[in-house]
Amino acid sequence: MDISQIWEALALKEGGTIIYLVMDGVGGLADPDKYGTELQVAATPNLDQIARGSACGLLEMVGPGITPGSGPGHLALFGYDPLAYRLGRGILSAMGVDFDLQEGDVAARINFATMDGAGKIIDRRAGRIDTETNRHLCSQIKESIRLQDFDGEWYLETISEHRAVFVLRGPNLSGDLKDTDPQTAGRPPLRPEPLHRNRNAQRTAKIVQSFVDQARDCLSAEDKANMVVMRGFGRYEQIPTLEARFGLEGLCVAFYPMYRGLSRLLGMETIKPPKIEDGLEGSFRALEGIYGDRYTFYFLHVKKTDSTGEDGDFESKVKAIEAVDRLIPRVVNLNPDVLVVTGDHSTPALMKSHSWHPVPVMIHSRFARTDDVKTFDEYACQQGSLGLRPGIHVMGLALAHAGRLRKFGA
Amino acid sequence: MDISQIWEALALKEGGTIIYLVMDGVGGLADPDKYGTELQVAATPNLDQIARGSACGLLEMVGPGITPGSGPGHLALFGYDPLAYRLGRGILSAMGVDFDLQEGDVAARINFATMDGAGKIIDRRAGRIDTETNRHLCSQIKESIRLQDFDGEWYLETISEHRAVFVLRGPNLSGDLKDTDPQTAGRPPLRPEPLHRNRNAQRTAKIVQSFVDQARDCLSAEDKANMVVMRGFGRYEQIPTLEARFGLEGLCVAFYPMYRGLSRLLGMETIKPPKIEDGLEGSFRALEGIYGDRYTFYFLHVKKTDSTGEDGDFESKVKAIEAVDRLIPRVVNLNPDVLVVTGDHSTPALMKSHSWHPVPVMIHSRFARTDDVKTFDEYACQQGSLGLRPGIHVMGLALAHAGRLRKFGA
Repeated sequence: MDISQIWEALALKEGGTIIYLVMDGVGGLADPDKYGTELQVAATPNLDQIARGSACGLLEMVGPGITPGSGPGHLALFGYDPLAYRLGRGILSAMGVDFDLQEGDVAARINFATMDGAGKIIDRRAGRIDTETNRHLCSQIKESIRLQDFDGEWYLETISEHRAVFVLRGPNLSGDLKDTDPQTAGRPPLRPEPLHRNRNAQRTAKIVQSFVDQARDCLSAEDKANMVVMRGFGRYEQIPTLEARFGLEGLCVAFYPMYRGLSRLLGMETIKPPKIEDGLEGSFRALEGIYGDRYTFYFLHVKKTDSTGEDGDFESKVKAIEAVDRLIPRVVNLNPDVLVVTGDHSTPALMKSHSWHPVPVMIHSRFARTDDVKTFDEYACQQGSLGLRPGIHVMGLALAHAGRLRKFGA
Repeated sequence: MDISQIWEALALKEGGTIIYLVMDGVGGLADPDKYGTELQVAATPNLDQIARGSACGLLEMVGPGITPGSGPGHLALFGYDPLAYRLGRGILSAMGVDFDLQEGDVAARINFATMDGAGKIIDRRAGRIDTETNRHLCSQIKESIRLQDFDGEWYLETISEHRAVFVLRGPNLSGDLKDTDPQTAGRPPLRPEPLHRNRNAQRTAKIVQSFVDQARDCLSAEDKANMVVMRGFGRYEQIPTLEARFGLEGLCVAFYPMYRGLSRLLGMETIKPPKIEDGLEGSFRALEGIYGDRYTFYFLHVKKTDSTGEDGDFESKVKAIEAVDRLIPRVVNLNPDVLVVTGDHSTPALMKSHSWHPVPVMIHSRFARTDDVKTFDEYACQQGSLGLRPGIHVMGLALAHAGRLRKFGA
C-alpha cells in the first residue's frame, strides 16, 4: 500500500494553512572551482534563519538513481506516488495553456522544427521562432488539415516560441504512442508507432501520422518551421484532487504553464501568471495578494533555479537562489502554519541537466522538531532530523505539522 | 513495484563503465580488545582517499535483521531483488564448476561426510579429503548407482576437497526439498523431504533418497568419506541478464566458483580464475589485463575478507583488508566512470559468521555528491550522503552516476 492512502484516510477537513515554496531544480553538486554547491556558495541569510527553526532533511523524489522530470518531482511533493501517476508531457502541456481537457483526450507536445532536404531534423526548435509566427502557423495548419478516418475533434494550441500542443478528442483513442521527435539533431523524424499491439493505439497512430504528413505539406514553404515533431503522448484521466484526498483547497502561483497545468490537474486553482517583467517579485506579490482564508494550501513555484542549472550557469543559479532568499521573509511574514521550502529535483550546474541527487528540504512550523542544521544546503540538511526520505513523505509531514491528520488507531 | 524495474525501463544502451570491487563479508563489529572494527583497525590510506572523493553510505542487503548468504548479497548488489530471485546453493555450485545447466535441472550441493557406527554425522567435511580423492569417489558412485524410477540423466561433479554438486535432469522435477545435511555434527543425516505436498516434489524426494542410499552403500568401505549430505536444492530457471535489464556487458573476476557461477547466471562473462599462488594480486592483474572497451561492467570479487571473518580471525581479516588497500590504486588507475567499493554482507570476526549488520559502501565518480566521510569504515560511512539504504539501490545509483539512466517523466 502506498503510504499516501493512509494520509488520505486520516485527513481532516480542517486545520492549518500550508505554503510550499518550490525552487525548481535547487539541488546541486559541488563545483571544485567554486568551493561548494550552488546553495553553499549563495549568500542566504534568510533561508539559513528558517533552517534554524525547521526540521531539515533530504528528499529522493522518485527513487534511488532516478532523475525526475518536473512532473514526477512535483507529483511526489504533492503526495502522489510518481510511479503510480504517470503524466505525459502532452497532458501537462495542454493543461498549461488552459486547454479544457476532457476524460479520454489524447495530447502530445509539439515542437516546430527545421528539416533539411534529406529529411533530417537539423533544428528541433526551428531556430526558436517567435510566438506570433507559431500562432500564425497553427491557424494555417488547422485550416488546411482534414485528418483521415477520424470523425472526432482535434486541437492545435500555441504554447510559446517553437512549442505547441496537439489534442485528439473522440472515442477509442490511445495515448500509448512513441515520440516522433528523434531527440537528437541530424536524424529523421520517427513514426508515431504504437507502444504495443492494441487496436486503439494502432488506430491513433494512423491518425497522428495523417496529421504529421499533412502538417509537413502545409509547412513546406517555411524557412525554419517546416516540420513538426511530437513527444509525450498521453491519455487524460481524471486524478483525485488534493481536496478530495487531503482536504486541501489549493492555489498555485507559477509563471510557467506546465506547473499551472499540473496544479489544475490536482484541483488547485491558479491565478493569472505574474507579468514576466515583474520577475520573481511579481510571484511573491501575487501570493501576498491572494493569501487569506479562501485557500489552505499555497504552492509558489520558482523556475529560474532550474533553468540556470540547465544552462550550466553556476553563478546565475547562485544569483537565482539569492533572489529567492531576499524575498522569502515576505512569505514568512504571512505566518502560515507550515512553510515547506524545497525543490522538485536537483539540477546541478555541473551537469547542465536534472539529476538524481537528493534535494534539501525544510519544514518550518511551531511543531517541527528543529535540529542542528544552520544553513539550507545539501550537506547541512543531510544531518537534519528528517533524514533522507522519499519525496512523497513531505505531504504527510506537512499535513501532520498543520494538524490535519487524525491519530491512527485507538 | 520493484524499483529495479524502473531502472530497467530507463536504462540506456550506452554510457560509462562501472567497476564493482566487492570485499566479501567486509563489514564487521568493534572488538573491545582491538579498539574498533576490522575496517577501523586496518591501515587503509588508499580506501580512505577514495572515500574522500566518494558518496558514502551503508547498505542493508536483504532487509533489517536479515543475514544474507553470499548469493542474495550479490544479487542485491547487481540490482536483483533477493526476495524475488531465490537461488539455491546447488544451482550456484553447479554454475561454479562450469556445469552447463539447462532450464528445469534440479541441483544440490553435496558434502562428503564421516558417519559413525550409530549413523550420526561426526564430520560434515570428511576431514577435508583432497580433491583427487573426491574425484575418485565421484566416478565410483557414478559407475555403481542406478537411480530408482528415474529415466532422466543425473550428474555428480567434484568441486574441491569435500565439496561436490549433484544434478538431476528430466521432466517433472522439483527443487523444493529439505536439506539432508543436519548442519551440526553429532546428528544423523535427514531425509530429503518435500517442502510441500506436491507430486513433483514427492517424486524428486524419492529419487534423491535412492541416490543417498546407494551412495552410502558404495562408500561404506571408506574411512572418512563414508557418506554424503546434501543441501541447497533448487530448480534452474533462466534469469534476465544484466545486459537485457540494464544494458551492461559484464565481466567477472573471481577466484571462487560460486561467484563465477552467479555471474554467469546473470549473463556476465568470466575469465579463467587467477592462479591461487598469485593470490589477490593475480585478481587485480587479471582485471587490468582485460579492462577495456569490450565490457562496461567489471566485478572483482575478494574472498579473504569473508573467510578470515568466518574463522573469527580479526587480525587476518585486518590484513586481508590492508592487502586490498595496497592494490586498489591499480583499479583507480583504470579510471572507470564509476567505482563502487563495498561488500555483500558483514562477517564480523567477533561472530565467526555472516551477519545482518549494514555494509559500508562508497561510490566514486565525478558526479558523486561527495560528503565529509574521510575513512572507509562502518561508522564513518554512517555519516555519508547515501545514508542507510537497501543493498539493491547500489545498482540504480551506479547506473545513474555512469549516465546510463534516462530521465523519468517529463
